[in-house]
Amino acid sequence: MSAKYALGLDFGTNSIRALVLDLSSGEEIASETAAYPSGAHGILLDESDPHLARQHPGDYPRSMERALKKTLAAARKRGVAGKNICGVGIDATGSTPLPVDRRAVPLGVQERFRNNLNAQAWLWKDHTAAAEARIITELAAEMRPRYLAKCGGAYSSEWFFSKILHCRQVDREVFQAAYSWMELSDYIPALLAGVKDVSHAKRNVCAAGHKAMYSEEWGGLPDREFLTRLAPEMGELRNRLYEKALASDQLAGYLSEEWAAKLDLPAGTPIAVGAIDAHSGAVGSGVGRGILVKILGTSTCDIMVFPAGEALKDVPGVAGIVNGSVLPGYIGIEAGQSAVGDIFNWFVSRAANRGEAYHAELTEKARRLKAGQSGLLALDWNNGNRNILTDPDLTGLLVGQTLLTTDYEIYRALIEATAFGALRIIERLEEYGIRIDKVINCGGIAEKNGLVMQIYADVLGRPMEIAHSAQTVALGAAIMGGYAALKGQEGFRRIEEVLARVCRVKKKVFHPNENENRTYRQLYQIYRKLHDAFGVKGSREDLYPVMKELLEIKREG
Amino acid sequence: MSAKYALGLDFGTNSIRALVLDLSSGEEIASETAAYPSGAHGILLDESDPHLARQHPGDYPRSMERALKKTLAAARKRGVAGKNICGVGIDATGSTPLPVDRRAVPLGVQERFRNNLNAQAWLWKDHTAAAEARIITELAAEMRPRYLAKCGGAYSSEWFFSKILHCRQVDREVFQAAYSWMELSDYIPALLAGVKDVSHAKRNVCAAGHKAMYSEEWGGLPDREFLTRLAPEMGELRNRLYEKALASDQLAGYLSEEWAAKLDLPAGTPIAVGAIDAHSGAVGSGVGRGILVKILGTSTCDIMVFPAGEALKDVPGVAGIVNGSVLPGYIGIEAGQSAVGDIFNWFVSRAANRGEAYHAELTEKARRLKAGQSGLLALDWNNGNRNILTDPDLTGLLVGQTLLTTDYEIYRALIEATAFGALRIIERLEEYGIRIDKVINCGGIAEKNGLVMQIYADVLGRPMEIAHSAQTVALGAAIMGGYAALKGQEGFRRIEEVLARVCRVKKKVFHPNENENRTYRQLYQIYRKLHDAFGVKGSREDLYPVMKELLEIKREG
Repeated sequence: MSAKYALGLDFGTNSIRALVLDLSSGEEIASETAAYPSGAHGILLDESDPHLARQHPGDYPRSMERALKKTLAAARKRGVAGKNICGVGIDATGSTPLPVDRRAVPLGVQERFRNNLNAQAWLWKDHTAAAEARIITELAAEMRPRYLAKCGGAYSSEWFFSKILHCRQVDREVFQAAYSWMELSDYIPALLAGVKDVSHAKRNVCAAGHKAMYSEEWGGLPDREFLTRLAPEMGELRNRLYEKALASDQLAGYLSEEWAAKLDLPAGTPIAVGAIDAHSGAVGSGVGRGILVKILGTSTCDIMVFPAGEALKDVPGVAGIVNGSVLPGYIGIEAGQSAVGDIFNWFVSRAANRGEAYHAELTEKARRLKAGQSGLLALDWNNGNRNILTDPDLTGLLVGQTLLTTDYEIYRALIEATAFGALRIIERLEEYGIRIDKVINCGGIAEKNGLVMQIYADVLGRPMEIAHSAQTVALGAAIMGGYAALKGQEGFRRIEEVLARVCRVKKKVFHPNENENRTYRQLYQIYRKLHDAFGVKGSREDLYPVMKELLEIKREG
Repeated sequence: MSAKYALGLDFGTNSIRALVLDLSSGEEIASETAAYPSGAHGILLDESDPHLARQHPGDYPRSMERALKKTLAAARKRGVAGKNICGVGIDATGSTPLPVDRRAVPLGVQERFRNNLNAQAWLWKDHTAAAEARIITELAAEMRPRYLAKCGGAYSSEWFFSKILHCRQVDREVFQAAYSWMELSDYIPALLAGVKDVSHAKRNVCAAGHKAMYSEEWGGLPDREFLTRLAPEMGELRNRLYEKALASDQLAGYLSEEWAAKLDLPAGTPIAVGAIDAHSGAVGSGVGRGILVKILGTSTCDIMVFPAGEALKDVPGVAGIVNGSVLPGYIGIEAGQSAVGDIFNWFVSRAANRGEAYHAELTEKARRLKAGQSGLLALDWNNGNRNILTDPDLTGLLVGQTLLTTDYEIYRALIEATAFGALRIIERLEEYGIRIDKVINCGGIAEKNGLVMQIYADVLGRPMEIAHSAQTVALGAAIMGGYAALKGQEGFRRIEEVLARVCRVKKKVFHPNENENRTYRQLYQIYRKLHDAFGVKGSREDLYPVMKELLEIKREG
C-alpha cells in the first residue's frame, strides 16, 4: 500500500487541533493547535449567569486557518505536502448548536447579532436550558417514551432542542432570525464544502442521534406534533432542520475552491461527515467490539460499539444508543460522567488556590494512601449525574471526615468516587449484555495522571490501557476523513482494518492490585448504598429527597 | 455588705487562670494566666497514637504559682491584698484522672515514672480508651442499666474508669503502683489543703457523677461486683477510691502553711470542693432554672439545672444528670457536642494552612450568605456525637457540593451543622420536660465570633445572650470559693443571691432573624433526616451502617 495521508480537524472547547496522519503506518506526521481568540479561553461568559457558555462562530474558521497552516508547514518539512492529503475528517464539541440563516451563515458573525450571546454558538457545556430539558423530558415521557429510551431516560440541558427552546423563550429576535440550527460538527464540513444553502448541508448521525433524538426507528428527528407541543414555532422549525443524518464514513462534500486556496489544499478533496469529539476520540483509540474507550477530561465519555446486526436492548440510564454514531456497521453506545477532572480541579482550586505545586503535592501524598485508609467516601455528583441516573439535580457528598482528615485524603476520595461512578456504568452495560473485555483510556487525565489510572485499575478490577496517541480525537477525525475518501480501496475495505493498522496502546498498562481491589469492592458496596439512597427514588434507604430539597431551598433564596 | 474577695483557679487544657473577684459587686479585680510548660501547649503527645493526650502533673503547681503571683500583684495594685481573700474555688478539665500514691503524690512527678506517659495525668481529650469505653458500656447494659441511664446511655472513652481500665490493660506497672486515682479537680484542692493521705482527700460530685457513674441512688461509685467483672484489680481499686463525693458549696479543706507561704495568702483560707471547668463556667454565666448555658469552645458543654426536689426523668442521650454537680440544691444536667470550634479549626487549617487572615476572610464571606443559599448541609460529627447519640463512631458528612461550591460556603455549612446539633440537644431536653427560657453563651467562640452567634440565634430561633465575663470559668470557681467559705452569712444565704449579684450578660444580644429562621427550620428537617439515617440504628432510612463500615475498613487497613 502506498503512503496515503488524511487530515483531521478537531474543534475542541478552547482551541482547534489539526493533524496529518499517514494512513498506511499510523504515523502522525504533524499536529498543531490554535486557540480561539474570543472570550475567556475561547468561551463567552455572562457574569450574571454562571450556566452560560457560548462561542463566537467567527473564531472557528480563523483558528482553523491558523492551526492548519502551522500543521501543513510542519508536514511539509517531513515531506508531506497539502496536495498529498486525500481526505479531511472533522469532529467538534457537541451538542454545540449555532443559529444560522438560509445560506448557512451563523447569525453570530452578522453585524446585527455580533454582540448578542444568544446568536452565538451554544457551547456543549452551556447549562442555561435546564428548565427546557425538564419540559422536553416530561413531554417525551408523556407523548413519546421511546424517544427517551435511546437517550437514557432523560433529555439533557446540554442538548440541541433544550438550547433551541431556551433561545425561543429568552430571545425571540434571534429565534426568529434563525432559519435553521446547525451542530458545530455539521457547520464546519458545510463551510469547507462551500455549502450555500443550509438545506444542502449534510448532518451527522452522531450529533443527531445522541443529542437531538434522531432515529431511523421513528423516521428521523422528533415528529412535528411533539415539537409543536413544546412551542408552535418549534414545530415549524422542524421542516428547516433535516430529514436524514449520516455516519462519518459518508461524505459531506468536497473542499471548495475558496477554502482550497485559503488552506493550500487541493480543491475537491473529499470531506467526511462530522462527528462529536468524544466519539472521534474513541475511533482514534481503536474502539471495537468488547472495547470500552474512556475519554477522561473535565467530564468523561464512555464509548462502545455493538454490531448493528445483533439484538441490543435499550440500556436504562445510558445516554445514547445510535446506529453508526461511532463506526459504520455498529451501534454506538455513549455514556459518561458529568464531572471528573472538573471535580479534581474544583477541589484543588477551591481548597487553596495554590495551583500546580499544590496539585502535585496532593497527588504525591494521596498516592501513598491505601484503599480505605482515609475512612472517606464521596459521591461524584458535583455536576449532577449523567449516567446512569441521568439527573442533573444531584450534588456531591462526602462522608467519613474526622478532625484528622487531610486535604490529600479528600482529594483521593474524590478520585475514588469518580472511579466508583465509572464502575457503576460498566456494571449497567454488562447487565444489559454488552460485554467489556478491555478498557482503553485517552484524554488529558489518562495521559498525565498515573494516580488516577492506578486507582481506576484497582477500583474497576481491570487493567487500564492508555491510547498511544496523545491526540486521539484529531486522530479519529483523520481516520474517518481517510476512510470516507478511500472506502473500498485496498487497505480501506472495512473500518476495522484501518483501526488495526493505525491505533495502538502504550506499553505502560496499569494493572489492578489484588489487595486494593478487595478493599475497593467493599467500599463500592457502601458507595452503591449511598448512590441508591440519594440517587434512586424509592430505594430501600430513600434519602432521595435530600439533595432535591437542598437545591430547592437554594433556588428559592 | 462590706467588700469580700474570693479567688478562683481554673485549670484549663493549655494553661491555668487565676481570678480575684469582688463578691459584693461582681467586679473582677484581677485575672492572669500561666501556660503549662511541658509538651505541645501543655499536652504530652505520642506521635504513634493521635488519640493520646496527657499532662505532666508537675506543671500544675508550677503554673498555678506563676499565675497566682501575677494575679495577686495586679490585685494589690487595685488595693486588694492576699489577706483579703476569704475563699478559694477550683475547677479543672475533666475527666482528667491522675494515678497517685497513698500520700496523694502523682506518680508522674516521681523519678521512676517521670517519662512514662501512662503515669501522667490523662487529659480529658485523651481517646486511647475507646475499646474500654465499649466494654464498660456493654457490661453496664447487661449488669447495671441504671448506671447508663444517668449518663446518656453510653460510657465515654474520655471518662474516669475507661482510662483507668485502659492503663490496667497497657501498663501493669503504673496501674499497680497507683494506690488511687484522683481527678485533677480533686487533686488541686487536696494539694493546697496539704492532704497527705489520699483517703482524706475530698472528691467532687461533679466529676464523680458525670464521669465516674457515682450516684447516691446506688450508694456511690459503681459496685465492686461490677468493677470486678471489668478486671479483678478494678474491683480491688474501688476501696482505694472514695465513698462519698461532695458539691462545691462544701469545703475540701483549708490552705496549708506551706502553700500559704508560697502563694502569699493567709494560711487556713477555706478551699471549696472542686468542679469540672464547664460546670464552673455555667456558674460564672449565671445558670439557674430555665437557663441553658452553652460553653462554646473546641467542643461544647450545655449545662442546665433543675430543682432537686422536683421529679426529673432520665433524658436518653444526655450525658449527665447529677445532683449538686453545678449548684447546691439543684440537679445538674450536662450535655454537649464533641467538636464545635475544633471543626472550624480543622476546616480552616486543613484547607489552606493560611491562618488567621484566611479565617477572617472565610468569616467575612460566610457572613454575607443567607440561610440555604449554598445548597450545602453538613453533619457535625467529625469527632463523633456526644449527645444525643452518644456514639464516638460517627463521622462528618457534607452534602450539596457543586463545582461552584466555595470554601466559605462549606465553612458556613459547618457552623450551621453545629447549630443544628445544638438544636437537637435542646429539643431532647424539652421533650423530657426541661423548659428552656433563656440561652446564655460563654467561652471563646461566644466572646469572639458574632457570625457563629447570629447563626445560632437564627437556627435555634431564640435570642443568644453572652455572659458578661470573658472568664466565666474562673469566675464560677471564685463564686463557689466565696460561697463555700461564707455560706449562711448576709448576702450568702443562698447561691442564687450570689449569682444574681455577680453574674451579668452583655448588652449585645443576637436576636433571630425571622426569614433566616424559617429557612433553617426547613434545613433542620433535612438535617434530622440525615441525622437519623446515619446516626440512629433502625431508623426509617437506615444508613446507620455506612459510617461504621467505613471506620471498620479504615481500622482494618
